[in-house]
Amino acid sequence: MTLADGVLAGDPRAMARAISLIEDEDPAGAELVRAIFGKTGRAYLVGVTGPPGAGKSTLVDRLITEIRNGTGAVPYSVGVIAVDPTSPFSGGAVLGDRLRMQAHAADEGVFIRSMATRGHLGGLARATGDAALVLDAAGKDIIIIETVGVGQDEVDIIRTADVSIVTLVPGTGDDVQALKAGIMEIADIFIVNKADREGADRLASTIESNLSLQAYGEADWRPPILKTVATSGQGVPEVVEAIWRFREHATRTQAARRRTRSEYRLRELVSTRFMDHLEREVLGEGELASVVDRVAARELDPYTAANDLLKRALR
Amino acid sequence: MTLADGVLAGDPRAMARAISLIEDEDPAGAELVRAIFGKTGRAYLVGVTGPPGAGKSTLVDRLITEIRNGTGAVPYSVGVIAVDPTSPFSGGAVLGDRLRMQAHAADEGVFIRSMATRGHLGGLARATGDAALVLDAAGKDIIIIETVGVGQDEVDIIRTADVSIVTLVPGTGDDVQALKAGIMEIADIFIVNKADREGADRLASTIESNLSLQAYGEADWRPPILKTVATSGQGVPEVVEAIWRFREHATRTQAARRRTRSEYRLRELVSTRFMDHLEREVLGEGELASVVDRVAARELDPYTAANDLLKRALR
Repeated sequence: MTLADGVLAGDPRAMARAISLIEDEDPAGAELVRAIFGKTGRAYLVGVTGPPGAGKSTLVDRLITEIRNGTGAVPYSVGVIAVDPTSPFSGGAVLGDRLRMQAHAADEGVFIRSMATRGHLGGLARATGDAALVLDAAGKDIIIIETVGVGQDEVDIIRTADVSIVTLVPGTGDDVQALKAGIMEIADIFIVNKADREGADRLASTIESNLSLQAYGEADWRPPILKTVATSGQGVPEVVEAIWRFREHATRTQAARRRTRSEYRLRELVSTRFMDHLEREVLGEGELASVVDRVAARELDPYTAANDLLKRALR
Repeated sequence: MTLADGVLAGDPRAMARAISLIEDEDPAGAELVRAIFGKTGRAYLVGVTGPPGAGKSTLVDRLITEIRNGTGAVPYSVGVIAVDPTSPFSGGAVLGDRLRMQAHAADEGVFIRSMATRGHLGGLARATGDAALVLDAAGKDIIIIETVGVGQDEVDIIRTADVSIVTLVPGTGDDVQALKAGIMEIADIFIVNKADREGADRLASTIESNLSLQAYGEADWRPPILKTVATSGQGVPEVVEAIWRFREHATRTQAARRRTRSEYRLRELVSTRFMDHLEREVLGEGELASVVDRVAARELDPYTAANDLLKRALR
């Protein structure tokens, strides 16, 4: 059985192996995505983000349980990709991953995986996207992508999900800063987690008043603000309900976002492949390094250097 | 007088205009960077990051004051680039910018600018780097780059600064999460801000015990953990001292980081220029869009599509 067959059959070991290949940027990972790509597009992508300490991991655990205990005839299966923010030197923590898996270890309908890809620009977004394709091809109905941080890549990952959930937490005393941090606009659903803490109502009102600055039409989705206490599970069923409501509502949005996802991936792939071509086929050994040295020494400006390199590749 | 002349003369209006061009990805911005590049490389880059709500803006304001009141014969001039994390729809807040400038409005040795660039991959890092070049060419001695968030781009911006400062804050109850978030490894200096709050000592010890897991040699720089109350200025002189000490210590590190910065910029530029070439010169109107549509419709996988596009550009 090939790895692609294993993934398509939903074999967890094949899925884990496939995601490792993707994470390592192994060419076999690209081969695999190519092989399974036609069988993807069925899963529903739920993006969850928010600042560190917002309790996203616990919340996602509760969401899994809630979705798995759902009222449908056959419960949805769930895949989770927890994007451990770029740990530029260590490569990120896998321990948390294992701990989290234990809670759902007996449940074959759940697959959880952390990713800590780094490297060149866009690497994280691509790896996350490809890992989601693996879970999709493996038949997971709902794929939750969880990111810490509010960086550009993370925002791009979340805002191109089918539904984008932003989790905030009261009591940091800087609620407005968190909102300022560019995550206001990407939320389809707001969660005020740790809502048993002081300041939860104030945070919810701040979000509410920020929302009221925007013009929503009759038919527009107005992001609900839901209060949760993820540690106890309070409010989590309402989050899952809101996800389903958004899913019903936003079919047009979904098509547009899926297209944007495809465009991001395609652009990133083309430029990465071009850089590989340039380094391996066009330039001699160490040649790029010596151009970098000249730029670092201010002998050559980066724009002229880039144009020269491009010309050589294209001639 | 050309814009480049204005920048080199340190004219604030020319600097502001130059950074706007860069932010808008106007070709004139690239021209400008090309013109001033040879006059850059003199400024010292201080990167400040940390989660939202860590009080970075206030801290940076205090750092400016402290540096400007420095004991040198001629006080250092300071430029600040506050990277307002990608506000993907609105384009970010400029209001805060103006408010912050007021505190230093009378001081010609200070220039503050927010950036909220978004758009394609790597755009933020490039724009920030180019804006830093403008301030550098304009003669600013110290350039502070402040980012909110712990995303990949932001981490890359900060970790390639000459000195990387990570600001944390006690009392979120999730100190370990903040540390886990990949920022542990990039810090040359840790700041526990809002140190008058409960939990400041605990947070400092947590950082300390995380540091002790790492092997530092005799000659290695061991990141100091400094407590500040930015609102009152407490502890800020010690931060500036630590910056000078690091600067003295890490001359080798500095060369390596500057080279890495050059390499990032070069790679990003080459791939961006290649994509422009592909879209404008190689493909017909709407052709890329139709490839994206086919990928979105699962008729074509992104890897095959990328290879096809690359082949067309290179033939």
